[in-house]
Amino acid sequence: MKQLTAITISIGDELLSGKTLDSNNAFISKQLDLIGIPVIKKIIIGDVPQDIMDSLDWAFAQADVVTLTGGLGPTHDDITKSVLCDYFEVGLKLYPDLLENLKERFARRGFKFSESNASQAEYPENASILDNPLGTAQGMHIRHEGKHLFVMAGVPREMEIVTTGQIIPILSKLTQRSISKVDIHAIGVPESTLYELSKPVLDEYSDLKVAYLPKQGMVTIRVSFPSNSSEADQKLADEIYLNIRDLKPKNIYGRDDESLPILIGRLLKEKQASVTTAESCTGGLVASLITDISGSSDYFQTGFVTYANETKMSLLGVLEETLFEHGAVSEATVSEMLEGALNRSGADYAIAISGVAGPTGGTEEKPVGTVYVGVAGRGHQQIKRFQFGNNRILNKEMSAFSALNMLRLLLEEAQS
Amino acid sequence: MKQLTAITISIGDELLSGKTLDSNNAFISKQLDLIGIPVIKKIIIGDVPQDIMDSLDWAFAQADVVTLTGGLGPTHDDITKSVLCDYFEVGLKLYPDLLENLKERFARRGFKFSESNASQAEYPENASILDNPLGTAQGMHIRHEGKHLFVMAGVPREMEIVTTGQIIPILSKLTQRSISKVDIHAIGVPESTLYELSKPVLDEYSDLKVAYLPKQGMVTIRVSFPSNSSEADQKLADEIYLNIRDLKPKNIYGRDDESLPILIGRLLKEKQASVTTAESCTGGLVASLITDISGSSDYFQTGFVTYANETKMSLLGVLEETLFEHGAVSEATVSEMLEGALNRSGADYAIAISGVAGPTGGTEEKPVGTVYVGVAGRGHQQIKRFQFGNNRILNKEMSAFSALNMLRLLLEEAQS
Repeated sequence: MKQLTAITISIGDELLSGKTLDSNNAFISKQLDLIGIPVIKKIIIGDVPQDIMDSLDWAFAQADVVTLTGGLGPTHDDITKSVLCDYFEVGLKLYPDLLENLKERFARRGFKFSESNASQAEYPENASILDNPLGTAQGMHIRHEGKHLFVMAGVPREMEIVTTGQIIPILSKLTQRSISKVDIHAIGVPESTLYELSKPVLDEYSDLKVAYLPKQGMVTIRVSFPSNSSEADQKLADEIYLNIRDLKPKNIYGRDDESLPILIGRLLKEKQASVTTAESCTGGLVASLITDISGSSDYFQTGFVTYANETKMSLLGVLEETLFEHGAVSEATVSEMLEGALNRSGADYAIAISGVAGPTGGTEEKPVGTVYVGVAGRGHQQIKRFQFGNNRILNKEMSAFSALNMLRLLLEEAQS
Repeated sequence: MKQLTAITISIGDELLSGKTLDSNNAFISKQLDLIGIPVIKKIIIGDVPQDIMDSLDWAFAQADVVTLTGGLGPTHDDITKSVLCDYFEVGLKLYPDLLENLKERFARRGFKFSESNASQAEYPENASILDNPLGTAQGMHIRHEGKHLFVMAGVPREMEIVTTGQIIPILSKLTQRSISKVDIHAIGVPESTLYELSKPVLDEYSDLKVAYLPKQGMVTIRVSFPSNSSEADQKLADEIYLNIRDLKPKNIYGRDDESLPILIGRLLKEKQASVTTAESCTGGLVASLITDISGSSDYFQTGFVTYANETKMSLLGVLEETLFEHGAVSEATVSEMLEGALNRSGADYAIAISGVAGPTGGTEEKPVGTVYVGVAGRGHQQIKRFQFGNNRILNKEMSAFSALNMLRLLLEEAQS
């Protein structure tokens, strides 16, 4: 079997104007990548019929698989289907079953069925329908001169279910060669340092492809290699991960789908322990990240958001003298926040954070981005001072993830 | 002056593989849009020299302004500069000042200066340097046959500062015609209903362009029109906004940069009042959204994350009988959470939320996505039951934003 390649096309003025991020094509790329069909180019175009036709010509000339998203909703910037009919010189076909379903669906949700929705039961004659269980716009599969065109609505969760439920099974039959990969996640180490450290290790292998992907103050090293057997792939991925992790075990915290909230959840469950949070500048973000994980109620019961000094005193028992002498952004205050959070929640572990998120409120001694992050178990505390940047949201995120990483280390240490 | 158009090119295997979202091009598009230079196409390509050259040919053939991002960092997937030298048939030029700055910068942050970083002081001979105050990779401006190429690093905050600080001032001098727009934000009303309602209003105007942009369970209607005088634009935008808002004043909550956290902050400041939060299934997200806003300490002092029943009792004084009789996900529990949060924080207003975020934990009576959202002032409560979907993160977001919208309505009501 030959190596198939893909091109993705997104339609939508809102994508061009920058108002909406093109997360759809990112999802499609990941899924195609997993079955060994690399996306070689992506293009984003406006709601302009001629541009859609030109893009189809351009994509069919370069790739075997073409996906087209956007332009199928009920609103009037939706022109894709009529363009497809023009492009392939076919008419529209009404699917009576779909029309019935559509009407029922609207009735069930208590919405009025309007004429602009009826067109969603019509599709170009040369298309096979790809079932979309979550919405009214079905996907389409059109075979064209030995190539495959897949067309989907732009609503992310509908696009996702059509991609994984319909498109991937169709394409999986056509491809065999695939790429395996391992994503290695690091926090608190600059990209250039990570590159310098990992290069000699990765250079030992042939045929690797390596990319450094920064996000939210963290970096992911993505290492891809040609797939062999699933067992051999697994072994190679494990080996690469462990070799890289050993370079900076405090900073390299996980791989693939392992996020810090998932990892601390796993560690806490293993120990049958719980964690509480006492947050000032992160304002509830740490608690929200922890509870993004399904099943987190097993190890998270209580969080304190103590934004004001009064609340640090009343909810956590921080002493007025401590706040007066050292300020709210200090090691002494965070230490008392940790102690108070443990005592008042009954949890086994605590995270506490106090800092200057910015963009205002900095001083000479504690400029914007100064954050004290603490973690504690019963009878043990660790507090670190960080100096982040000027962006409020990024400072919240980096503080929160740094705290989760410190908790991970504390939990792993307690384990060994 | 003629209407200029732009094409954006992003380089990076990580963008093609879907690992990273292309937020850079979205930012660039917004900025260019504001000065009346629409982006007509966007393309994303891999780290392949031939593809970069082909894209430059393709883009110069269609647009006046071309931007190229990615591929300037210190890691080895960075090939852009050498491709530019090949494309324009020029050599690299070393900037000694930049080399000095680079070395100083590394020393100051305590990192080792490595050889792979030295190349960041070299740029193609035909490029003008665009100062990047936040990083080591400078931007470039290359004039080519009457067209403009701008090249930037892929790190978002560096790309942003080079775009707004350098590129936009250069291009502003070349353009005059511009587009004005108003974004109208709605929550709790489906896109198709919003379309049906707003169409007759918007059809009264000529020359409008309308897009419906769904996000996190909310929809933004973006209305654009050719710019006239700034006063006339303002008047038209105001008029359109008010006409649309009056269709559904409870659901249409704001315009342009007005997010719900910003709006409730503004209303609370006006009343010199404060708000507290008591969160179960949202797990701190409401508090985190409120504290995303600089200056929120003026009106937010305390948040309770009461994930467990025990904590609802101990921190908020919810009665055991209430939890036993009605369950944690109930109007009765949320009512006591509101009362407890007000009493124990001393705040003037409260938000309380309890629901089944999912994907597990649903029952016949209260399926996944069932959420009770309450808001209260002194002596007044309002609690609503919502039925969201099966996605945990989306359920958290929709619950949080629905709560903020209910608080907005309560604050506006109290005002009039």
